[in-house]
Amino acid sequence: MKISIQELINKIKFIFKQVGCSENDAFIIADVLVSAEARGIPSHGIIRIKDYLELWNAKKINVNPDIKIIHQTPSTILIDGDNGFGPVVSYFSMNCVINLASKSYSAWASVRNSNHFGIAGYYALMAVQNDMIGISMSNANPTVAPTFSKAKMLGTNPIAVAIPALYEPPFVADFATSPIARGKLEIMEKKQQFLTFPLVQDINGHPSIDPSVIRKGGAIVPLGGATMDTGGHKGYCLSSIVDIFSAIMSGANFGPFVPAQVSYLSSDKNFPGKGLGHFFGAFRIDAFSTAEEFKQNMDYWIKTFRQSEPIDCLQLVKIPGDPERIAEENAKNNGIYLDQFLVDELHIYLKKFHLEDPF
Amino acid sequence: MKISIQELINKIKFIFKQVGCSENDAFIIADVLVSAEARGIPSHGIIRIKDYLELWNAKKINVNPDIKIIHQTPSTILIDGDNGFGPVVSYFSMNCVINLASKSYSAWASVRNSNHFGIAGYYALMAVQNDMIGISMSNANPTVAPTFSKAKMLGTNPIAVAIPALYEPPFVADFATSPIARGKLEIMEKKQQFLTFPLVQDINGHPSIDPSVIRKGGAIVPLGGATMDTGGHKGYCLSSIVDIFSAIMSGANFGPFVPAQVSYLSSDKNFPGKGLGHFFGAFRIDAFSTAEEFKQNMDYWIKTFRQSEPIDCLQLVKIPGDPERIAEENAKNNGIYLDQFLVDELHIYLKKFHLEDPF
Repeated sequence: MKISIQELINKIKFIFKQVGCSENDAFIIADVLVSAEARGIPSHGIIRIKDYLELWNAKKINVNPDIKIIHQTPSTILIDGDNGFGPVVSYFSMNCVINLASKSYSAWASVRNSNHFGIAGYYALMAVQNDMIGISMSNANPTVAPTFSKAKMLGTNPIAVAIPALYEPPFVADFATSPIARGKLEIMEKKQQFLTFPLVQDINGHPSIDPSVIRKGGAIVPLGGATMDTGGHKGYCLSSIVDIFSAIMSGANFGPFVPAQVSYLSSDKNFPGKGLGHFFGAFRIDAFSTAEEFKQNMDYWIKTFRQSEPIDCLQLVKIPGDPERIAEENAKNNGIYLDQFLVDELHIYLKKFHLEDPF
Repeated sequence: MKISIQELINKIKFIFKQVGCSENDAFIIADVLVSAEARGIPSHGIIRIKDYLELWNAKKINVNPDIKIIHQTPSTILIDGDNGFGPVVSYFSMNCVINLASKSYSAWASVRNSNHFGIAGYYALMAVQNDMIGISMSNANPTVAPTFSKAKMLGTNPIAVAIPALYEPPFVADFATSPIARGKLEIMEKKQQFLTFPLVQDINGHPSIDPSVIRKGGAIVPLGGATMDTGGHKGYCLSSIVDIFSAIMSGANFGPFVPAQVSYLSSDKNFPGKGLGHFFGAFRIDAFSTAEEFKQNMDYWIKTFRQSEPIDCLQLVKIPGDPERIAEENAKNNGIYLDQFLVDELHIYLKKFHLEDPF
């Protein structure tokens, strides 16, 4: 089905109000999930509603969290999300960061006791709307093996960095620190496709191009590949940094203990930390040079990279954020197309949970 | 030859005092370069002396820089390195960051008008010595092509993050955001070795395993490889972030304009910014939780990852920083082994520049 952004937000808001979220919280969840659809990242959009509802149904999530600042310094904040929905906790946290950064020029929040937060870029872009550079990261349930390990110890641990420019649209890097998403591997397996490069390993740790090894106890390898020869240890480092900033700084669960965000995967109740962790940051753009200098320099950077000589003149060099922005403009003008299987799945879940169905 | 750390520092200090550096600055340069050798990163050690001397001989570097804080806010600092040697500028800058972070709990410096700074980890570890988390990054002269580009637009742009623990040694991730460092390719070329995977591309953008393509107009591909299939665009994002934080925030040269730090590459004199850029940061470990909680959590993280099930019981899982720390302990006990070709090369350069030869 084809649906306008506003209409889709309203429908999703309607669903989350029914599970007990406030008007405002339901809007935030809807806005974050629809933003993923609009920006061409459907793996973090409507498909997640069923998982959020499963967590609610299993009483594993707090629909009316009392999100609290536990500790604050002149530039840093520790936040407890009270086991709320990730988008609600993250929206609150990023606003705290933006407010503090407006005074202290840079500010950071480490967040515990949260859940899956959707696309990292959403929160980084909140800073851009306030003429700041935004940084956003999260740990996630373990699917990635460190270099030399058989074990799933790290999540896809995304990072987003959004940077405003003057006349150019903002630079928005928003990427998982694993080389490939688990969802993509599932689709490849269904289509009986193989990887062109061993981005997964089997249960014994042997590098593989067969996506089905994940279902059979295997793991995704770090960004850079299975070996140090190809820089895989660098991806392991990067993902570890996201995990430590999100969970060790805040007291959330880290690495192998990060709770699953789908209810059909069981979570050990004796996990050492609190929920899932995030890390947010912001710099005022006049934190170093003047705002004008910064924005002009940023325009120059973007233009220079966009014009860099392509290998194939039919495939020009992209600036991080270009594909998502183009998708979003298209969604604003022409609406969002939802696959019928997604809508059908929603019908089933809404009925199962005795919720009124807006679709 | 085999030489003790202290003796090697003294010899290098002796060289840099001859080119006009102060006692203190010559020591810092020597300490940074020897630290690279001791930590098993020879690509950033003694092999760089000839490049530093070439820059001096070409009057492209200021041996007595007046390094200045240009602008400061409650948590951020803009520094101009006055075209000094990178280690001297970076040591100054990281000390400024540590001092400011001691008051504001986190602090950041963007630095322009600097040069090659050696190993990023050196500066990140300065924070650890002050019970802080240290972050260090730098742009570098262009050797890496963005995804879909033939052109060398980004440097190997290293990132280091050093994090103290309680009983465990610190976590020290120190890595180029390219799959391989230019210095390593240089050593492989000298030893007539080839890559096991195509981590470089030739002048037409075709993937290659021959390190010499770099000298012939080719480029290194981003971390994650040459294509989006393997996550190469994520490495492009990461390297871009380092470039923007180091150069756009500070007004240094960015991307393709970063001045060459090696003798065989020429530098355009009409570059738009000032020198090369760095970015440094520090968090007090009590910025979020208490110092005790943080350190205990960090010990738990390190132990958990070190004990994760290995693929091969003869190759245990490493914590970032383990190999470098073990190498450094070995160097402290047994001295540093320098390849004869390195010493021979130094003899040649010192003679060429009419400098007294301590080797």
